[in-house]
Amino acid sequence: MDKLLFTPGPLTTSATVKRAMLRDLGSRDDEFIALVRDVRARLLGVGGAGDDWTAVIVQGSGTFAIEATLGTVVPRGGKLLVCQNGAYGARMAHIARVAGIAVEVYETAEDRPPDPAEVARRLRGGVTHVAVVHCETTTGIFNPVEEIGRLARAAGARVIVDAMSSFGAVPLDLESADYVVSSANKCIEGVPGFAFVLARRAALAETEGWARSVSLDLHAQWRGLEQNGQFRFTPPTHALLAFHQALLELEAEGGPAGRAVRYRANRDACRRGLRALDVAELLPEALQGWIITSYRYPTSPGFAFDSFYRSLAERGFVIYPGKVSSADCFRIGHIGRLAPEHTEALVAAIGEVLRGARVRS
Amino acid sequence: MDKLLFTPGPLTTSATVKRAMLRDLGSRDDEFIALVRDVRARLLGVGGAGDDWTAVIVQGSGTFAIEATLGTVVPRGGKLLVCQNGAYGARMAHIARVAGIAVEVYETAEDRPPDPAEVARRLRGGVTHVAVVHCETTTGIFNPVEEIGRLARAAGARVIVDAMSSFGAVPLDLESADYVVSSANKCIEGVPGFAFVLARRAALAETEGWARSVSLDLHAQWRGLEQNGQFRFTPPTHALLAFHQALLELEAEGGPAGRAVRYRANRDACRRGLRALDVAELLPEALQGWIITSYRYPTSPGFAFDSFYRSLAERGFVIYPGKVSSADCFRIGHIGRLAPEHTEALVAAIGEVLRGARVRS
Repeated sequence: MDKLLFTPGPLTTSATVKRAMLRDLGSRDDEFIALVRDVRARLLGVGGAGDDWTAVIVQGSGTFAIEATLGTVVPRGGKLLVCQNGAYGARMAHIARVAGIAVEVYETAEDRPPDPAEVARRLRGGVTHVAVVHCETTTGIFNPVEEIGRLARAAGARVIVDAMSSFGAVPLDLESADYVVSSANKCIEGVPGFAFVLARRAALAETEGWARSVSLDLHAQWRGLEQNGQFRFTPPTHALLAFHQALLELEAEGGPAGRAVRYRANRDACRRGLRALDVAELLPEALQGWIITSYRYPTSPGFAFDSFYRSLAERGFVIYPGKVSSADCFRIGHIGRLAPEHTEALVAAIGEVLRGARVRS
Repeated sequence: MDKLLFTPGPLTTSATVKRAMLRDLGSRDDEFIALVRDVRARLLGVGGAGDDWTAVIVQGSGTFAIEATLGTVVPRGGKLLVCQNGAYGARMAHIARVAGIAVEVYETAEDRPPDPAEVARRLRGGVTHVAVVHCETTTGIFNPVEEIGRLARAAGARVIVDAMSSFGAVPLDLESADYVVSSANKCIEGVPGFAFVLARRAALAETEGWARSVSLDLHAQWRGLEQNGQFRFTPPTHALLAFHQALLELEAEGGPAGRAVRYRANRDACRRGLRALDVAELLPEALQGWIITSYRYPTSPGFAFDSFYRSLAERGFVIYPGKVSSADCFRIGHIGRLAPEHTEALVAAIGEVLRGARVRS
């Protein structure tokens, strides 16, 4: 029995998702081409996208798809405004700078969402593209992407949403976005190996020849998939088989709305249990989402994250280290093939470890 | 039963390699970190590399690792000489150009290997890096990478070998290279999802800050793996589990030398069988390798590749389309979890299809 993963991914996946990988398909064979076509169509369905959208799969991790998007869709002479309140916003700005893209960073504290009014003000400075993280996994905060996206689009800018850890379990009105980026091993509960971008066709169609990279050319990847249904370069066939099964299981759970019910129940069980143990949440409740929660280190003297982590791992639970720059935190994820009873078992183990380590009275 | 894949990858893999994926590991958990460390060490063993080498894993397809290498290790002001006699050499030149790297292409016909003497001549023109494909999958030709690499290194240039489809089954003296790039789903018989680079530590250590990309920064990827054993960005955990098992199975088969025996036997069975059917090889025998063979279309009137392909697929065999620009070809791969009897079954099916299609007497 593998340890349960209370992380932002790779996640605990269902046995059926994993068993879907017990096949070898040729990447240019008809069966695989049909599978990819179906996956792309279902992804549009998950996002609630109309015919004016397309889904492009990108090999690699979510960061690869973020870089493929930024590096392809912002033209030379364009200017990218990045809303940054955590590591993933900062990463987008870093990617843009390395790619030679003019970038302005609107930074707020990690426990503060970007203010749409401030975004509106900054839009006047020649900004052509706005990038914002939906659920900033650094803290678990949900950012006001729809408000920001709507006003940016109204001002004529293109909007890139990093929906890595939210897509498939947190509503997002696509009217507020042009590009939405997510990954196989997040709320759709596939295995890692690729990421994907939902894109407005009309926007993506403009970007031919703009990419700074061959591997990470989102436009060329799209054209390849459209022309003959094939990837330009070897796709992770097994991860795509798993993902197809994961999409079926998402639909069986009632789609993103149904999945959100379970994730919120996981979050609620975690909140209830850790509050009872006096472990404090980093964010005020109003800013918390239901993907991952940041907790401050227990204040008891003698608490050490490494031994806390290992004691939980020995009991079969993998938690996640913190990433907040201003406070010592750890994180508990609520996504993956986990139910509230798994979270309750984790909470019980945390209580046991904190007591056993005599870091609590 | 899945169709047998006579392709350059994704390949038919063993059941045990696929079953190794029936687990979910946390990408920052100790068990996975230990697995990655072991995989990297075993890769050096497969390549026969000493302590002055390191192995870096790159998410995505083989092309991603080629781009990570070219885009990281050639400095601004450097000049790359690409030996091109097929699509993969051309792709390296394309990647370099898009990355803004000065590139000189030494092109020979697809059925002609690069001439080391001509490489030596061109080295005098300020070339800092030489890139050459070991087995050019376009035709299946084996290029004289060792000769070219030795003289380029002697002249002070760094040498990048695209050993994508050869590593693990075709000998390569690492004295003739600085960087050797290959992929999980080739001769090591893993599943697709990542690629890897064997690199001389001293060479790679010089390249800090040179990369044109964040995702494809080979130096940063290496540093991340060295510092805490973790990937910077989500790795394909399941593909790595499969690869670990595949490495064990490669060792059980006698390592690259043992594997080459089987692949050569597959190639020989293919050659014997298709010669008997009057299907002609593209390359003269002296230039052929044992990874993949290009065959000219049967000359019989009425031969159509699409129906030929589909008829074989219906019988459970996936072959590969051609990629040669000057001749109509198809390709038969000899790698993957296939034995000569599988190739003999394929040959029998080809005979049946050619007779049945009445394109042969």
